[in-house]
Amino acid sequence: MATTETVYEINDIPLDEYHISLNEALFHNANGYIGVRYNFEEGYPQEYNFVRSQYINGFYDFTPMKQAENLYGLVNEKQTMLNIADTQAIKLFIDNEPFSMFSGTVLSSRLWLDMDKGITVRKVVWRSPQGKELELTVTRMASFDQLSLFTIEYEVLPLNFSGEVLIESGHNGEVLNYVDPDDPRMACEPMQHLTPLMCEIKEGESYITSVTSRSGLEVCSCVKNILLQEHRQEFLINGYHAICQFETEAIQGEKIKLIKYAVFCDTIRYENAKKQAELEMAKAFAVPLVDLYKKQEEYLAAYWENCLIQIDGDPELNRATRYSLYQLIQAIGKDRYCNIAPKGLSGDGYEGHYFWDSEMYIQPFFTVTNPTLTRNLLENRYATLDLARENARILGHRRGALYPWRTIMGRECSGYFPSGSAQYHINGDIAYAVVAYYLATKDLAFMQEKGAEMLWETARLWMETGNFYEGKFHINDVTGPDEYTCIVNNNYYTNIVAQYNLRWAVKIYQLLKTSAGFDALKAKLDLKEEEMADFQKAADNMYLPYDEKLKINPQDDSFLQKRKWDLATIPKNKFPLLLHYHPLHLYRHQICKQADTIMAHFIMEDAQSEETMFNSFHYYEKITTHDSSLSYCIFSLMAARLGMADKAYAYYELTAKLDLTDRHGNTANGIHVANMGGNYLAVVYGFGGFRLKEQGISIAPILPGQWAGYCFKLSFEGSRIRVHVGKEQCVISLENGDAKKITVYGKEYLLKDMLFIDRPSLSADDK
Amino acid sequence: MATTETVYEINDIPLDEYHISLNEALFHNANGYIGVRYNFEEGYPQEYNFVRSQYINGFYDFTPMKQAENLYGLVNEKQTMLNIADTQAIKLFIDNEPFSMFSGTVLSSRLWLDMDKGITVRKVVWRSPQGKELELTVTRMASFDQLSLFTIEYEVLPLNFSGEVLIESGHNGEVLNYVDPDDPRMACEPMQHLTPLMCEIKEGESYITSVTSRSGLEVCSCVKNILLQEHRQEFLINGYHAICQFETEAIQGEKIKLIKYAVFCDTIRYENAKKQAELEMAKAFAVPLVDLYKKQEEYLAAYWENCLIQIDGDPELNRATRYSLYQLIQAIGKDRYCNIAPKGLSGDGYEGHYFWDSEMYIQPFFTVTNPTLTRNLLENRYATLDLARENARILGHRRGALYPWRTIMGRECSGYFPSGSAQYHINGDIAYAVVAYYLATKDLAFMQEKGAEMLWETARLWMETGNFYEGKFHINDVTGPDEYTCIVNNNYYTNIVAQYNLRWAVKIYQLLKTSAGFDALKAKLDLKEEEMADFQKAADNMYLPYDEKLKINPQDDSFLQKRKWDLATIPKNKFPLLLHYHPLHLYRHQICKQADTIMAHFIMEDAQSEETMFNSFHYYEKITTHDSSLSYCIFSLMAARLGMADKAYAYYELTAKLDLTDRHGNTANGIHVANMGGNYLAVVYGFGGFRLKEQGISIAPILPGQWAGYCFKLSFEGSRIRVHVGKEQCVISLENGDAKKITVYGKEYLLKDMLFIDRPSLSADDK
Repeated sequence: MATTETVYEINDIPLDEYHISLNEALFHNANGYIGVRYNFEEGYPQEYNFVRSQYINGFYDFTPMKQAENLYGLVNEKQTMLNIADTQAIKLFIDNEPFSMFSGTVLSSRLWLDMDKGITVRKVVWRSPQGKELELTVTRMASFDQLSLFTIEYEVLPLNFSGEVLIESGHNGEVLNYVDPDDPRMACEPMQHLTPLMCEIKEGESYITSVTSRSGLEVCSCVKNILLQEHRQEFLINGYHAICQFETEAIQGEKIKLIKYAVFCDTIRYENAKKQAELEMAKAFAVPLVDLYKKQEEYLAAYWENCLIQIDGDPELNRATRYSLYQLIQAIGKDRYCNIAPKGLSGDGYEGHYFWDSEMYIQPFFTVTNPTLTRNLLENRYATLDLARENARILGHRRGALYPWRTIMGRECSGYFPSGSAQYHINGDIAYAVVAYYLATKDLAFMQEKGAEMLWETARLWMETGNFYEGKFHINDVTGPDEYTCIVNNNYYTNIVAQYNLRWAVKIYQLLKTSAGFDALKAKLDLKEEEMADFQKAADNMYLPYDEKLKINPQDDSFLQKRKWDLATIPKNKFPLLLHYHPLHLYRHQICKQADTIMAHFIMEDAQSEETMFNSFHYYEKITTHDSSLSYCIFSLMAARLGMADKAYAYYELTAKLDLTDRHGNTANGIHVANMGGNYLAVVYGFGGFRLKEQGISIAPILPGQWAGYCFKLSFEGSRIRVHVGKEQCVISLENGDAKKITVYGKEYLLKDMLFIDRPSLSADDK
Repeated sequence: MATTETVYEINDIPLDEYHISLNEALFHNANGYIGVRYNFEEGYPQEYNFVRSQYINGFYDFTPMKQAENLYGLVNEKQTMLNIADTQAIKLFIDNEPFSMFSGTVLSSRLWLDMDKGITVRKVVWRSPQGKELELTVTRMASFDQLSLFTIEYEVLPLNFSGEVLIESGHNGEVLNYVDPDDPRMACEPMQHLTPLMCEIKEGESYITSVTSRSGLEVCSCVKNILLQEHRQEFLINGYHAICQFETEAIQGEKIKLIKYAVFCDTIRYENAKKQAELEMAKAFAVPLVDLYKKQEEYLAAYWENCLIQIDGDPELNRATRYSLYQLIQAIGKDRYCNIAPKGLSGDGYEGHYFWDSEMYIQPFFTVTNPTLTRNLLENRYATLDLARENARILGHRRGALYPWRTIMGRECSGYFPSGSAQYHINGDIAYAVVAYYLATKDLAFMQEKGAEMLWETARLWMETGNFYEGKFHINDVTGPDEYTCIVNNNYYTNIVAQYNLRWAVKIYQLLKTSAGFDALKAKLDLKEEEMADFQKAADNMYLPYDEKLKINPQDDSFLQKRKWDLATIPKNKFPLLLHYHPLHLYRHQICKQADTIMAHFIMEDAQSEETMFNSFHYYEKITTHDSSLSYCIFSLMAARLGMADKAYAYYELTAKLDLTDRHGNTANGIHVANMGGNYLAVVYGFGGFRLKEQGISIAPILPGQWAGYCFKLSFEGSRIRVHVGKEQCVISLENGDAKKITVYGKEYLLKDMLFIDRPSLSADDK
């Protein structure tokens, strides 16, 4: 049994509707390719509102999206992540009595996620209405080693009876997507996306192949059930629903064990989904289950080795933080056909679309712990660069690429462009992530093959968007990260990432210009040397709004002239504001959904003085609702950056527990993955003061008064570094790889083995 | 036969699809209550794309309007003007040969609108495929005297044969609205709005009653056919389609005449539509048709007496101008249940919604020619004031009323709020119209009962919208008239109408505060004296953007910092830009759909110096596409105002002929009524230099070099004034009513009978 820090568990599983659907998300199993919500195998009472779903990352259908008024270029079709065939169902009958948590008596129950083993387990002791008692243990796993594979190990221990047992294991191709017509953050129209084509039994395996309605993609799922004792087995097929029925004898005190293997394959990755499913099932079945569990554990051991955060003496926060990091590896796509969605693979929220969350909240974690995984995500963006070029044309730009604000396969899915397509900063975010990946890895090959092209094409778009006015380069009519103020001029965040984007477009040109293949690349992109001068000029003259009186960076040109609105006067039940106020009302007020300028201060801390950042922090803190889950973590890390350890700690706690406490009230629709990336950011970039820059890496740790110490891991240019921050000193160890320079508290060291560096006294930290 | 100036005619009626649908609009018959497109009674070839429709002003159904992303407060249901029962069909068979313009040979044909008689006539000489020749004369009228009535007089003259004639006169309740899924200016989803409930024949009259799908309104149409010679008559009913069949003998050289009466009644105006239809039909039938024609002529004679514009020696422009004024009286609603739609009752464009066109382009005409008709329109706005209050609440305002940008029954119908609901200037426009009506009539009773309440409630809304910043009152996040720049701060037009609105809210308070009933009104509205001080303060400190360098009023705070876009570089087929560029692309450029600041200079000419207005004119002229039909007229009158007679003349010509030349290519969807109001504005407020202000009325006529002279009419405080502008002098006559003061070229005169005033020399006019 693992220590509690590596296990998130619930005793006495709550059976009310709210908790059922919350736990569906919190205990889901995923591996970046498939995700299965934690649904009880035996089901729920019919009247319950639950979301019984399983997903494939990057597998989508097109959904028509009618615009109320169809102006030119508005998006009329979105992509939707699909609920694929249900392989979860297992029904148990003891002498015709069905097992259900909602009948008879649950004598004890426990549900846990083991983050070292990579499994979810439910253990229930149950007495049937007629008095038969049994212990049920169900172990679920989405394999990290074999991404197509989901397993359920289903064990029944008869405690006070022997008798007839019937087990029905289902495989159902007749599924629909979940919808909620009242929430703009969810899909709202019931729609048949997947049509089953075939349902057949072959050598004891059931196969269901379905095709999407509009995208023409196919998915095949295969299920194999193994009952490890004498039994009679029969298959029933009803439409596209296959049921494997086992009749067997229960003997008091002897475990009955069913192993259910499910594999999923799709035609995005494979030409023939069914053929691949056959291969995958054969592969899974070739090794004993116990070995699959072992591989899972090994995968995670390596993962934790690279990224684990440990907080000395706070098991609860430790577990919450580990939970966040666990969800990140569950959520991240492992190939170039997908990316990482805001809800990972845990729910239907935002329809499985990919946003800037990936580049700005999640990649900063992977880039310095598992850069290969970041590279996959960037490959995904590169694979959709042509669609980003098309998108730029739709928006009226003759050159360059504009990445979509939300997408699965690369086309824009924003229904409401002012807080969608208008968020041009996505281009700068992707450029920022490309540069960060390069800085962390010095992977010049990637830059030559893909990264440089992305930097140039995004840089070109800024030239197409902005214009010089009174000597300065202005970017008008875009939307920054804060969606409570849309279509503004010179959003500080946007302008500063655009500046960085432009600068690096030039830098990479200089870096590559003597390399092999450069001329071919230049020719392919019709790239001119003069463009670099234009990029440089725009970057050097980028207009960055600054208010002389308040000594802050205004969020945009007109933010400070807007109406004020005291947050304290708004009733609690009016949050999040977006569900209770008209967009125009929000736009007209100095009110923020999330960190915007504060976020800009984090990623470009050298652009402004300490004083400006400090003033900005206090100005925006008062007017930020944190209605977005992307906000707390940034406020935490900027508070730490500015020396306010207590404030940083308070925001950190909100970050770490956001889903476990369901603070936003919508975790049932999926966990908040970006916030989980933010959890790492808050510790490592926040308390740890870690920065990854052109000049190298640096840390400047502070220690919140609540902690005895903490430690975190970093990978840089192939070397892994461990940092432990104690009350008196920081211990920095090189765990593997070559020696690296590292700047600590502003002083550069060469890390060969270990460094022991005294911490500045704590008292000065907390202003 | 009328002179050509009073008749708009076409010889050799074109039979291609484009002209068929264009002429459906140009020759439609309407009276402000009903409108019937000019469809051939006998129909068109099946493959033709035509819009066979008839409408009732203000009669609507609700249509669900799904938002692609349903943010709080977005409009989810619009109102749609309906195509009501078709009473136009008359089919003629000569010995079984059907008459059709598309078979046999059209030997001659002519179609004309007689603007003195108020009728449309089609005369066709036709040879059937078998060689029978006939002359057909069809006269159509929408009666101004009896608004429910539409008549068709159908005369057949056999030229070279005698024989069997069959006439089928249809009355069809099975109709659908026209849709065009590709044009944002049209409804886009096919939808059954009207469900027929009943179709019956009663005493030779057919009745069809239909109910709307969602608004619960009913309409009843009744048709009566009279054939003035011996015949056999039979009724056929097929579903909700009644056909009255006449068999009769044709005798060469003897006219066969059918008179078809149709009346329409609805449950907005009457409790029992069918009962009312019975009464209306009896009323229509009680007088001979010739008397109905006479009443029509008398009505129009009185109309022309009040408003006619005559241009000496330019019959073509004269006819075009008369055509415009004729369409205005066809379009204007005559009761408080309706208003005046941009397409009048001539087509489905904009779904019959009412916009600011009414107050700013059309009422300035009626207010000074037929103020009673303006009062009806204002009564309609007053009747929907409570819904405007509701609308304000949806937009987040605690007090005041916000009129919807587009509506039929008073609820907002904007599908895309940035160029819809965000056009807060509609409030100022309505206030402006209320004041103008008061200034023209001094109808204090109206102000006490309704006008003041409208002024206060709209004024309150500005206080809720704007805020003081650095001592000035700013209005942020609204959209001005120019829809190519949306959601901006301090749109000059908006701020200046808001200022006027606020000032007049205070003025009317002062004016009424000692009147009877004032305290009750104050109590009803919870109006405080202090509010007046707030209104005054906001008005006095209204921020009006001004650019020191260009010496112009920028359209809004950031307009001048945006990208420039040389109109000359845009291919012709990319206009109107809204159909070819993404809104964000348009918003990001210094480009205007229509007069915006220039419009503000017209209505508030005293706010800026001549120089500023002159500079503004030239600045905006270069960047205005006139993609809106509301633009030329304003450029014409401001060119005149600024002394540029040639420019004024050029824009005036574009205005006057906009529909007759189908310049915007969409007249088939309906004529452009606001532009027709603009036609009057361009002559009277433009060339005539007429102004209606608190200080009184004034004129300062110029004479375009192309004209020998022109004359126009004005009503002011119950007196009618005729102005003739000649080369040397202006002759101003009091046609009826009391003597009035009038300022001419800056000098005040008392007009008792006639004034002869020398004109300043022309040469100086045209800068």
